[in-house]
Amino acid sequence: MTVTGRLVEYVRGSRFEDIPADVRHEAKRALLNIVGCALGGADHPAMDITMAALGAYAGPPTAAVLGRRERFDPLLASLLNGISSHVHDYDDTMPGNYIHASSPVASALFAYASQNRVSGADFLHAFILGFEVVARIGNATYPAHYEAGWHSTGSIGVFGAAVAVGRLLGLDAERMTYAIGLAATQAAGIREMFGSMGKSFHPGRSAQSGYMAALLAEKGFTTGRLPLEAPRGFAAVTAASYDLARIVDGLGQDFDLRVNTYKPFPCGIVIHPTIDACIQVRERNGLTADQVEAVELRVAPLVKDLCDKKAISVGLEGKFSIYHAAAIGLGRGKGGLAEFTDEAVADRALQRLREATTAIGDPAVGEDNVVVSVRLKDGRTVGMKLEQSLGNLARPLSDAQLEAKFRDQTTVIPPAETEAAIAACWGVAELDDVRTLIGHCVPGGRA
Amino acid sequence: MTVTGRLVEYVRGSRFEDIPADVRHEAKRALLNIVGCALGGADHPAMDITMAALGAYAGPPTAAVLGRRERFDPLLASLLNGISSHVHDYDDTMPGNYIHASSPVASALFAYASQNRVSGADFLHAFILGFEVVARIGNATYPAHYEAGWHSTGSIGVFGAAVAVGRLLGLDAERMTYAIGLAATQAAGIREMFGSMGKSFHPGRSAQSGYMAALLAEKGFTTGRLPLEAPRGFAAVTAASYDLARIVDGLGQDFDLRVNTYKPFPCGIVIHPTIDACIQVRERNGLTADQVEAVELRVAPLVKDLCDKKAISVGLEGKFSIYHAAAIGLGRGKGGLAEFTDEAVADRALQRLREATTAIGDPAVGEDNVVVSVRLKDGRTVGMKLEQSLGNLARPLSDAQLEAKFRDQTTVIPPAETEAAIAACWGVAELDDVRTLIGHCVPGGRA
Repeated sequence: MTVTGRLVEYVRGSRFEDIPADVRHEAKRALLNIVGCALGGADHPAMDITMAALGAYAGPPTAAVLGRRERFDPLLASLLNGISSHVHDYDDTMPGNYIHASSPVASALFAYASQNRVSGADFLHAFILGFEVVARIGNATYPAHYEAGWHSTGSIGVFGAAVAVGRLLGLDAERMTYAIGLAATQAAGIREMFGSMGKSFHPGRSAQSGYMAALLAEKGFTTGRLPLEAPRGFAAVTAASYDLARIVDGLGQDFDLRVNTYKPFPCGIVIHPTIDACIQVRERNGLTADQVEAVELRVAPLVKDLCDKKAISVGLEGKFSIYHAAAIGLGRGKGGLAEFTDEAVADRALQRLREATTAIGDPAVGEDNVVVSVRLKDGRTVGMKLEQSLGNLARPLSDAQLEAKFRDQTTVIPPAETEAAIAACWGVAELDDVRTLIGHCVPGGRA
Repeated sequence: MTVTGRLVEYVRGSRFEDIPADVRHEAKRALLNIVGCALGGADHPAMDITMAALGAYAGPPTAAVLGRRERFDPLLASLLNGISSHVHDYDDTMPGNYIHASSPVASALFAYASQNRVSGADFLHAFILGFEVVARIGNATYPAHYEAGWHSTGSIGVFGAAVAVGRLLGLDAERMTYAIGLAATQAAGIREMFGSMGKSFHPGRSAQSGYMAALLAEKGFTTGRLPLEAPRGFAAVTAASYDLARIVDGLGQDFDLRVNTYKPFPCGIVIHPTIDACIQVRERNGLTADQVEAVELRVAPLVKDLCDKKAISVGLEGKFSIYHAAAIGLGRGKGGLAEFTDEAVADRALQRLREATTAIGDPAVGEDNVVVSVRLKDGRTVGMKLEQSLGNLARPLSDAQLEAKFRDQTTVIPPAETEAAIAACWGVAELDDVRTLIGHCVPGGRA
C-alpha cells in the first residue's frame, strides 16, 4: 500500500477508544492552550484588517470566530481562528520539527463545529488525527523542508486541517485521498513573512485551504493519487531530502502530541530561559525593580546574535530582545501578553532595567540555558544558572500553569466564561456538542 | 531599489498609452483565447463539483462566472473562471517557461470587473501588467522552479492576479508590496495533479488567492518586504537557481505577450504536429476516413514515449494518444473539443484509424516535427513532413483562427452572443464598462 493510502486508511479507521489516555489528555492540554491563544489574539489588528478586507465576500454567517462577536461562513472563520491563535507567537511547538500544529487543525475544526453539530469525542479525535498527520509529515520532511524556507506551520498544517475536517465529513478512502491531494497542492507559506502579519496568515490560510480541500473532495473533485510521495508530490517538491517511512511507521502507536510543548511566554523561544531565570531570581530573593543595580546575562552566542536589541520602541521588538526579557522577569515577575505591548516597552522602570543589562555570548552556555547575575543597590549579588527552560519537554507547563496562561489571555470574555471555557476544554470528550465550548469563547455566547 | 520595489514601481507607474500597439493587440488575442477557453470549460464536471462544494459558503452573488448562469462572490467566481479556462488544456502557453499566464490573471480580473465598473482600457492594461509579472517571475525561476515539480501556472500565476487586481484597486507602493508578499506566501500547485481536476484547480486557486492578497493588502495586512528576493523569499524557497535580473530588466520595453502562443488543439502539445499534419494531408488530397488503409508516423522518441496509447476508452486519454491524433486529423480534419470527448474516442471510424496507425520514435525527428505517411486503399501513398506545428511562434494562429477556435468552444451561449463577445474582445479597449463583454459570455446576459 502507498504512503498516502496507509495514511488514509489510518485516519478513516482510527477509533477514539484506541487513543491512549495520556494522548487524549495531552490533546486537551493542546486545545486549552490554542483556545487561550485564539482568545488572546482575537482583538489583534490583523484580525480587524482581515474582517474589513474579506467580510464583504463571506457567505452566510453560520460560524463563530473564537473571541469575536462577528460571524462568517466557516471557511473565513477558520482563517480568522488561525490568525488569532498564532499572531502572538504563543501557541504550541513541536521541538522536533518546529511546527505549531494545533493552530491550523483546531482553527478549521472549531469553524466546522460551529456550523455543524459535532460531539466532543469526535472533535477531540479529529483534532488528534489532524495533529498527528501534521507531525508525521513534518517529521518526514524535517529539516530540509524548513531549512528551504518553508514555514511548515502553514505548508504542512494544511494537511492536518484537511484530514481532520475530512474525518468529520466521513470521507471515503478515495475522497480522503483527494482531500490530501488538494491539501498538498495548496501547501504554501514562506519564512520571509516572519516579523509581519503574514506569519499568522499561514496557519489561518492552511486551516481554510485544508477545510476547502475536504469540501471539494467530498463532492468528488479529483487529484493525483500519490500527493505525498510521487516524484512531483509534496515531499519531493518541497524538501531536498525526506524519509517517507516517518509518515507511516508506528501509526496508531506513537503519538507526537506526547512531544508537544507549550510556551510560557509570548515571544521568541530563545529568550524564554532568560525570562524564566529572572522571574526565579526575583521570587527567590523577594526583589523589586528598584533594588536592581546591574544585570549580567551569559547566553548562547546564537541567542545574543538573534536578540541583541536594547534600544527598542514597539512591543514586537520586545519579543526578540534579551534585555527586555531580563527586564520583565526582574521587574514584573512575569512574561504575559501585557509584557510585550508597546506600553510595556515604553515603561520607564523596564527601560531602566534594559539599560542596566549586559549580555555576553558564551559558547559554554546552551541555547536552552542562561546564567543570570544581578548586582543589587545594597551591594549584594544574586543570580542563578538555568539548565532547563520552563515549557520545554523536561519542564512542561503543568495543567495549572496552562490554565493560568489561558486566564492571562482572556480579556475578550468575562471571568465566568473564562472558567467555563477552561472546564469545557478539560471536559471536551464528554460534550454532546462542541458549541457548548465555543459559546463560552464568543462574546455574547452565540456559538 | 529592490527587485520587489522596482516591480511595484513599474506596476503602479505604467501608463496604458505607453504600452506598444502590438502588445495591446496581442493582449486582445490572449483575452479572446482565454474567454473562449472559459466558455468551453464552463460546463465541465469540475465546475459543477466546485459549485456544489463551495456555493453554500459563497458571499453575496455580485459576480458572474464566464459561461454560467450562477453568480457568486468575486473570489469564488475567480476560482471558477480559472478552472473552466484551463480544464481542457486549451489555453495559452509561453514556450520559454511553460506557463499558462492568461488564466490566473484574467480569471481574477473578470470576477473583479463583474462586481466593479472597470473601463476596457484599464482592464486590458491590468491584464497586460499581470501577464508580464507572471512571465518575468517565470523566466527568472525557469527551469529550476518547474523542474522541481511546481506547476508554475499556479505557483507563479498568483503574482499576476495579485498585481492586476492591486492595480485596479489603486494600491499604494506599500500595499502593492504586501499584495506581492501575500501572493508569494500563497504560491502553490504541484505537478502530481496533472491528469486530474487538480491541474485546473491551480490557475483557479491562484486567481482567487491573488485577488484575496490584493484585498487584504488594501486594508493594510502586512508582509515581509522582499517576498521575491529575500533569502527565504519565493525564488530562493522554490527554485534551486534563479536570475532575479530577469524580473526587472527591460521592464516597460520588453513584453512576453509577444512570445505567447495559442493552442490550436485541446490536448498535449506534443501531439499537435501530428494532428496538424494529418489535417493537411486530408485536405490536400481530399481524403475521407474510409479511404485510409494504414498510417505511419515518425515522431520524436519523447513524443512516442509520452503518447504511446492506442487502446483508449475516455476522452482524457485521447489528449495524450499519438494514434488518436492521427485519427482525428485524417478522419475529421479537425481537432476541437468534440474530438476529445468520450464519444469521439468510442467513434468506430476513429477507432479503426487508430488501429491502422503505427508510430516510430525517430531521433532525427524534432519534437515539433512529424513525418506522416498514409497508404490508401487504392494503392497510393500520400503524406508530408511537418517542420513547424500550427500555433507555435513560427506559425502563430491568425486572428481569424483564434476566432474560429472561440466559436468552436461556445456551446453555452448562442451564436449571436458569440459574435458579440468576439467583437467585444477586439474592441475591449474602447468599452466604458467590461460588463458589456462579460454580459455576452453569460447565459442570460447578466454581467
